[in-house]
This record gives sequence, structure tokens and C-alpha cells, in this order.
Amino acid sequence: MAKPITPLVTVDAVIKFNKTSIVLIRRKNQPFKGELALPGGFVEVGESVEDACIREAYEETNIHVNITKLIGVFSNPNRDPRGHTISIAFLCEPTTDSEKSLAKDDAQSLEIVHFTDIKSLKLSFDHKDIINASGIIKN
Amino acid sequence: MAKPITPLVTVDAVIKFNKTSIVLIRRKNQPFKGELALPGGFVEVGESVEDACIREAYEETNIHVNITKLIGVFSNPNRDPRGHTISIAFLCEPTTDSEKSLAKDDAQSLEIVHFTDIKSLKLSFDHKDIINASGIIKN
Repeated sequence: MAKPITPLVTVDAVIKFNKTSIVLIRRKNQPFKGELALPGGFVEVGESVEDACIREAYEETNIHVNITKLIGVFSNPNRDPRGHTISIAFLCEPTTDSEKSLAKDDAQSLEIVHFTDIKSLKLSFDHKDIINASGIIKN
Repeated sequence: MAKPITPLVTVDAVIKFNKTSIVLIRRKNQPFKGELALPGGFVEVGESVEDACIREAYEETNIHVNITKLIGVFSNPNRDPRGHTISIAFLCEPTTDSEKSLAKDDAQSLEIVHFTDIKSLKLSFDHKDIINASGIIKN
């Protein structure tokens, strides 16, 4: 049998910060270059999706996170203009040390966005759907 | 940027039948040829994981199913001897018509296994872990 071709697999992290906010990044690359997005990226062969989420969150935000729950699997074939990618999204929280150091450091290229401000923002991909599905923002 | 290489994506269906049983298949191909497994298979480019699950369940069991919940994402790099595959597992139930026709038809190459018998069976891959994670069998 020929090796199957399937969609590519990514992970995205909804990092809940200080009980009231979410950590977003500005994308450095296309697609959605310069726009706000959840930290995340491609899963590597040989790592679990949980490990990929923790690795990508750290690479993109310098925050060490713990996963608190699986939010869902987002697989609409049109969600990524590059081609079909599936996102496995996790709710995360910074480790205690990471939360302390983040609170002291204004220089990081992150955007800590209060829950009440998320609604009015434009986010990349289907990341607003992912945040809504996380259930952390009550209407 | 070179196109990323990620693990392959599969879906598996835990089909709850008649409130007391799960629908299993005997695998026709390697790996685990001849052994019992959950119905499932590779996700195709251009279909959502939910559509892939409903399609694979039907192709392998002739049962039309509805998805009732996402069980989880199973991504241990060693779970599939062919290489790294990720399984997205769903709890499903037959549609009303499918449940009626299944109950009448003894000839299908399926194994309808009562909850109480699952524990003692050997299943392919990590499919027993998936069934346990579904929460449908109470200890």
C-alpha cells in the first residue's frame, strides 16, 4: 500500500494568564503575517501532541506551560490558506515560575489580552473559534 | 519554507450499540491482521475529522453513525508499528435506521462485544485505552 497522505497536524495553545487574560503573539510569517494569533505550530514526527503544544508555547512565548485540558480538534479543510491543516487545541496555564517572570517583563513580544478585549480583536485562522470553544470566557 | 512533515492523522470510532455493547472489526490488513480493533482509518486531505470518522465507520461496518463526543487525541509516537500516526477518537452511536438493520443481520463481519467482555479481549493498537477513555464502561 502506498503511504497515505493526510492533512498536516498542528497544535495551538490557549494560555490563560493571571485568571483574566490570554497570551497572544504577532505572527512573524505568512499567512496572517503581523496579525494576532494563538501560539502554536506543527507537530513533529516522534513527539506527542501534548509535548508539541508545550514546546511550541515555549518557543513562541518563552512561557513554560502545563496543559489543563484538550479544547478540541479543528479540521475544517479551509481553515488554513496554505492547505489542509488540523489543529489540536489545548487550554494551558503558565507554570508558577513562568507566571512570575512574565509579570515582571514588559519587553516580550507578546500581547496579554484581557478576556473582555478578545471579542473585538481580529485573530488569525479560526483562533477566535478555538478561544470560544475553550469555555474560559463567559458571556 | 519547506513543507513540514508531521505525523499522519487517523480517526477511530467507538460505536456504542444497544446501550450495552461496542462494535469491533477484525483487521484485514497488517498491522494486527486478524485481530480485533475499533473501526477507523486515515483522514483524507479535504475532509474534516468528523466526516472522516463517519465515513470510515460506514466503510468498515456498514453502520451509519452520529458522533456524540470527542474522546481524545492519541499520539504516543510508538502506538502504531508503521510509524507515527495520531488517532482522533470519537464516541458514536448508530443512526436509528442503522441500529434496526444491524440488529436483524447476523451475517456482517462485525463483532458486537458486550461491555463486560471488553476487558478480557486483546485489541489492536491502543484501542483498549481509547475505549477506557470514552467513559462508557463503568468499573
